[in-house]
Amino acid sequence: MFTKRHIISTRDFTKEEIDLILTRAEELEIFARGLEPGAKAGKKSDLLEGTLLANLFYEPSTRTRLSFEVAMKRLGGEVINVSSPEASSAAKGENLMDTITVVSEYCDIIALRHPKEGASRMAASFSTVPIINAGDGAGQHPTQTLLDLYTIKKEHLLDSLSIALVGDLKYGRTVHSLAYALSFYRAKLFFVSPEVLKMPEEIKMDLRAAGAEISETTDITEIIEDVNVLYVTRIQKERFPDPTEYNKVVGTYRITTDLLKKNEEVIIMHPLPRMDEIDPDVDRTKNARYFRQAFYGIPVRMAVLSLLLGR
Amino acid sequence: MFTKRHIISTRDFTKEEIDLILTRAEELEIFARGLEPGAKAGKKSDLLEGTLLANLFYEPSTRTRLSFEVAMKRLGGEVINVSSPEASSAAKGENLMDTITVVSEYCDIIALRHPKEGASRMAASFSTVPIINAGDGAGQHPTQTLLDLYTIKKEHLLDSLSIALVGDLKYGRTVHSLAYALSFYRAKLFFVSPEVLKMPEEIKMDLRAAGAEISETTDITEIIEDVNVLYVTRIQKERFPDPTEYNKVVGTYRITTDLLKKNEEVIIMHPLPRMDEIDPDVDRTKNARYFRQAFYGIPVRMAVLSLLLGR
Amino acid sequence: MFTKRHIISTRDFTKEEIDLILTRAEELEIFARGLEPGAKAGKKSDLLEGTLLANLFYEPSTRTRLSFEVAMKRLGGEVINVSSPEASSAAKGENLMDTITVVSEYCDIIALRHPKEGASRMAASFSTVPIINAGDGAGQHPTQTLLDLYTIKKEHLLDSLSIALVGDLKYGRTVHSLAYALSFYRAKLFFVSPEVLKMPEEIKMDLRAAGAEISETTDITEIIEDVNVLYVTRIQKERFPDPTEYNKVVGTYRITTDLLKKNEEVIIMHPLPRMDEIDPDVDRTKNARYFRQAFYGIPVRMAVLSLLLGR
Repeated sequence: MFTKRHIISTRDFTKEEIDLILTRAEELEIFARGLEPGAKAGKKSDLLEGTLLANLFYEPSTRTRLSFEVAMKRLGGEVINVSSPEASSAAKGENLMDTITVVSEYCDIIALRHPKEGASRMAASFSTVPIINAGDGAGQHPTQTLLDLYTIKKEHLLDSLSIALVGDLKYGRTVHSLAYALSFYRAKLFFVSPEVLKMPEEIKMDLRAAGAEISETTDITEIIEDVNVLYVTRIQKERFPDPTEYNKVVGTYRITTDLLKKNEEVIIMHPLPRMDEIDPDVDRTKNARYFRQAFYGIPVRMAVLSLLLGR
Repeated sequence: MFTKRHIISTRDFTKEEIDLILTRAEELEIFARGLEPGAKAGKKSDLLEGTLLANLFYEPSTRTRLSFEVAMKRLGGEVINVSSPEASSAAKGENLMDTITVVSEYCDIIALRHPKEGASRMAASFSTVPIINAGDGAGQHPTQTLLDLYTIKKEHLLDSLSIALVGDLKYGRTVHSLAYALSFYRAKLFFVSPEVLKMPEEIKMDLRAAGAEISETTDITEIIEDVNVLYVTRIQKERFPDPTEYNKVVGTYRITTDLLKKNEEVIIMHPLPRMDEIDPDVDRTKNARYFRQAFYGIPVRMAVLSLLLGR
Repeated sequence: MFTKRHIISTRDFTKEEIDLILTRAEELEIFARGLEPGAKAGKKSDLLEGTLLANLFYEPSTRTRLSFEVAMKRLGGEVINVSSPEASSAAKGENLMDTITVVSEYCDIIALRHPKEGASRMAASFSTVPIINAGDGAGQHPTQTLLDLYTIKKEHLLDSLSIALVGDLKYGRTVHSLAYALSFYRAKLFFVSPEVLKMPEEIKMDLRAAGAEISETTDITEIIEDVNVLYVTRIQKERFPDPTEYNKVVGTYRITTDLLKKNEEVIIMHPLPRMDEIDPDVDRTKNARYFRQAFYGIPVRMAVLSLLLGR
């Protein structure tokens, strides 16, 4: 079903395909930990032995690049990194098409991050090996969405989800992709953002057409008691035409232990990196799930890699 | 014959040594592909298990660095990269000699790229392990020449070669090295360049002394029917004292499908990266061989690494 | 004794712990060499198979980063590098705490270099895996001290040491850490520096309290005959309020073959990189030990890694 396919957008998947990836991730999670003694001990695997991933990153990224690399290495695969574009042939003006064509001759699968929307789909048309879109500008970042879904699944909430997407819903590619994917699972969606950063009408129409139940508000306290997950994202000052407007609203979207008193069971997720939108005091609560969410990037990317490599 | 030797210049080799490397590359090519299902499937090897290559790159390079890394990893070896000089002790002003001395204590073989001509030969005098010159400024880049020869050999043209070297023949180190190496194989050489970028007299004298048959022209259409390989290189605007002069000539050295109508069998090679000197339409012709040529960097570097490491 | 501990400062160790590390390093040194034929041949090991080190370097470093990487790979472990902070989430303003928390979810052990003193101890409080301080600003660099001690031990001088610490004793973290560690071994310490770069009074008081025998001078020729090791460090022009002052003194701290005539048995050490403080002619003498000292970084880091990983 997946062998030799590209992973460009979560919107290319059926629900069955997503479920298959999440199930595979659960099977592989035991290999995502090291072998050292202690509670975190994992198991050794050579599932991907003899395969080679090229991490082709034209933009900075710690988490995504590293988690692809760890996923390969924990399963016995190898990795080559082209992560500083300034230290590559891009500095000599080579175009993406030629780089992809050559790199696909060198490896068995490519994870590509690129600042331009659509770069991954174009790359896929030239590559002789599978391309995994690891983020292309304002476009898609499908493995982020998959690990978000996996995190929700691990909380046993995927079939009874009531989730607030909080922050910049206008420009945030993460929340767009996630919202589309959640329409498969009959989730109740609450969009919480300042007026100027509201979810685009077009996306809301798509979601409603897919049967999603949507509410919108600018005030998180209005809906905090109605959700079992808060998915928090960054609000960037640059998005506001007027900085005083930013200063007025930003505090009201900050997650604090005070806010959590209104819903002691709610799970807090965040794609990271965060700035100030989650108070560090929240890290120590039983609600925080964003660091575990980051870890889940490993089993999810293991699943994607193994499925695409036909292992 | 090769164990513990350095690879600094193709001019250090005898014809027998070059032939040995090319033969070894043919034996190892099966390991240059991944193990995944499908037409490109390769075989697993642990020929270089327990050996460690240091990629010491003081200049940007995607293809060369990656192909050394892939060659090691496909044969079970390990690699350490020092590829961003700004992120290394070079930033603290350490000299190349000390870096080489230390790094040669850490690994079993070094691939060195450096902007200064002669850097590799100097490095070889300090290193306790083999140095492979991966390009030193206007100097040599011997593994590029070896993969060029390998590409020609795979076309069964090495003993009946009639090749046009096209583009910047004055400053291009790639074409200089290749021309010298081809004098071993009684190739007919056609030098095709603008007047200001002609092959240096000194090199032509050397080649004639070695028995090479040489023709020169500024017009590619004059000789296209007489060759079985076109080896195309970049023409840089900066090389011309007068930019209008550049604009006048550059188009006439561009390879197009129209030009190929004059010789439907000719093979097109290019060391990459290319700019505009080959029309992208040529990529889809049966003549294009430059991407396969890039792939051949893997088996050729496998051959060099295994011979120098005595495996 | 060491499993799951952090390595932040040599001052956290007892003498017994240091001796245990040095003994383990001696056991592992055979694995620090490659397997290729010849005098330098090593043995293969899979002691650290299935373990993953994250090299998290917020500052340039060739030697330290590479030697951690080589130590892991020679023992069958794997490594992920985050060595160009500009190419990481640090560029997006993520704080060290969050990066450490996430990276510790991805790997089994972290080597951290950071420009700010105290960064490692702070990191250790957030990490779920062992942190090895690989240098934090003016603070500690414990594995450097351990390899210095190992070098002295390999010369059979650890129990009869008379050592001159030469150069910048005021700001040099290397000499501070080494001096503290040597107080365990009843070493005679000679501090040789310009007046403005003298060893801080506080450190001298600590050392005397620990029973160390200390002498101070500005003139290396006064004590060269009394020592069996010269530990040389860099003197930076920027440290002098008046550049003419620098020019006056710097030559008198330069190690030359002439100086070595006064003590033909003395061993020369240096943490590298060096500038001009050791004449290159000294490299070829039997006294030079600084390149071997750099190599000893491998077995020492092997020892630390294997002990912390409980192998």
